[in-house]
Amino acid sequence: MNIGILGSGNVGGTLGRRWAQTGHQVVFGTRDPSADEIKRLVSQSGATARAATLAEAAKDCEVLLLATPWGATKEVLNGLGDLSGKILIDATNPLRPRLDGLELGTTTSAAEQVAGWAAGANVVKAFNTVGFNIMANPAFSGGKPVMFVCGDDADAKRIAKQLADELGFEGVDAGPLTQARLLEPFALLWISLALSFGLGRDIAFKLLRR
Amino acid sequence: MNIGILGSGNVGGTLGRRWAQTGHQVVFGTRDPSADEIKRLVSQSGATARAATLAEAAKDCEVLLLATPWGATKEVLNGLGDLSGKILIDATNPLRPRLDGLELGTTTSAAEQVAGWAAGANVVKAFNTVGFNIMANPAFSGGKPVMFVCGDDADAKRIAKQLADELGFEGVDAGPLTQARLLEPFALLWISLALSFGLGRDIAFKLLRR
Repeated sequence: MNIGILGSGNVGGTLGRRWAQTGHQVVFGTRDPSADEIKRLVSQSGATARAATLAEAAKDCEVLLLATPWGATKEVLNGLGDLSGKILIDATNPLRPRLDGLELGTTTSAAEQVAGWAAGANVVKAFNTVGFNIMANPAFSGGKPVMFVCGDDADAKRIAKQLADELGFEGVDAGPLTQARLLEPFALLWISLALSFGLGRDIAFKLLRR
Repeated sequence: MNIGILGSGNVGGTLGRRWAQTGHQVVFGTRDPSADEIKRLVSQSGATARAATLAEAAKDCEVLLLATPWGATKEVLNGLGDLSGKILIDATNPLRPRLDGLELGTTTSAAEQVAGWAAGANVVKAFNTVGFNIMANPAFSGGKPVMFVCGDDADAKRIAKQLADELGFEGVDAGPLTQARLLEPFALLWISLALSFGLGRDIAFKLLRR
């Protein structure tokens, strides 16, 4: 699969590196492809990775991971032009700058806003609910962490789920894109427990069934 | 412990029955203590349970479980008078009637509203994040389900956590009462997965650590 990373920071960098290492063609989209940290990221990711501008990454790949800071998201997407036929996996959270809340309430979500801005794309919400350290290494002795995906296009969700499964998560279909209204607060729960309330970043959630 | 159940429906009935069976004194508070289903509940719960009006349950018990339908919550609390010194464990979710959303956004929570209405009480949010069937039987082969508790009073949280632990959950302190802004959407995630998106009611979340 050709996977374009829109925003090659902690989350985008980690996922792109791991997908490259599992054999996908990864394009790290970034404002400055010649920056030192991007060169380092490409070199860590191996022969199937390269860096490009955000627009090139979007143009060259059928699957796009959106991992921009929330404040930059609209501008980044507006700069990409038509995304018809692209699968866009939205890993953003509309966090307030101090991580003490979400900028959007439960009557809408970042994902729905993204769908309005990403002209033509099939948007899936995923990879927003744990920290990048868990995406780097999702192995827990207690079982596989869950990765919820939600969206309105079955194929796009199937692909997002596959990408999560390949990394060692249990990808689970959580319903339509409006479910991002719940997955985004779920992400903030992880963040607040990890960073503010003493549990630390080495936590995740397993879906128990019987 | 003397535990008063405010709202003896599915959630309140299940938790009260199980707490009574583990040896606590449980008072099922309800509009009509002589109703057949309340008599049945008391008889299932054993010798340490009894039924009473909501006001009696609140007066006689130091620990109160709030398990009212959201629409009735304000009226119930307003009818209880001064709750100074009581521990009130809020298991409500401000669900919209069709369970398709929350009536309150992530800038406030039912728990914070409850704290404003429950004069003098130490409010803890807990027992709102899984269905009553899981509270009835939290045993999963994959591990213990997590039960988050949040609140602004350490003793009240310690007691809510103990009550969760006794039932077979892993009680986890999720921080101050404002964290209910996240635990309430987390509950709706469980509800939507269980009822609308095919996972069924026999699911829960385990907190993974390493």
